[in-house]
Amino acid sequence: MDREQLKSEEQNSEVLNSMKNIKDIPKEKVKAGTNAYRQVLIGSEEGPNFIMRRFTINPGGEIPAHTNRVEHEQYVLCGSAQICIGGNVIKVKKDDVVFIPAGIPHWYKAEGDEPFVFLCIVPNIPDRVQMIDKK
Amino acid sequence: MDREQLKSEEQNSEVLNSMKNIKDIPKEKVKAGTNAYRQVLIGSEEGPNFIMRRFTINPGGEIPAHTNRVEHEQYVLCGSAQICIGGNVIKVKKDDVVFIPAGIPHWYKAEGDEPFVFLCIVPNIPDRVQMIDKK
Repeated sequence: MDREQLKSEEQNSEVLNSMKNIKDIPKEKVKAGTNAYRQVLIGSEEGPNFIMRRFTINPGGEIPAHTNRVEHEQYVLCGSAQICIGGNVIKVKKDDVVFIPAGIPHWYKAEGDEPFVFLCIVPNIPDRVQMIDKK
Repeated sequence: MDREQLKSEEQNSEVLNSMKNIKDIPKEKVKAGTNAYRQVLIGSEEGPNFIMRRFTINPGGEIPAHTNRVEHEQYVLCGSAQICIGGNVIKVKKDDVVFIPAGIPHWYKAEGDEPFVFLCIVPNIPDRVQMIDKK
């Protein structure tokens, strides 16, 4: 492979866009949540097959029960939380890995004094969020 | 939605398998690398659309130049490194996000005194790794 070939302008431009830091990515409020924020790290225009998001739920915050059409692959970056998946409540903390299948109801409730922060990767296909009424 | 319905045995079993911690996941050596290890956090049988892996490159370690058939979406968990993507060398550290398009040559070289650790998510389709000879 000719290394010079790789240095075409087109590829350089691709490469320049390929690295970013989370502090440069805006946080948007999760409308259905309380003290919950989302950052889109790799969006639908950039990732051909899947999208990387980062969620922050501040102490006392939560994202209430809902379903998605898409599965979630998650990695906890810091803090701890209770997550309910399909009726089972689990406790998660830094370096835990969570898989939430498509269509299964789930909610998140931050625990402790530090923000609960996690990555959530979803396929790059249209999603639909359906909130579940509390009884 | 009937919450009791969700507690079927089948779904409970799905939920029980959906949380794990990285300390319980074996590290396998990256054959082409030096002091480089891979953990499969969510594998091809579990994630229908994409696979989550975690790489650790210890100080002085590297993964030499290669291409993959699949794109990489990456998140740096700790440490720092030089990564070369398509001929451009970038420096990355904790909380940086990296996108490596399919087919673009890339390599990693850990920097500093702590392990360089990153998540690398790839689509759940067959990959082919092709090493690039050093000139």
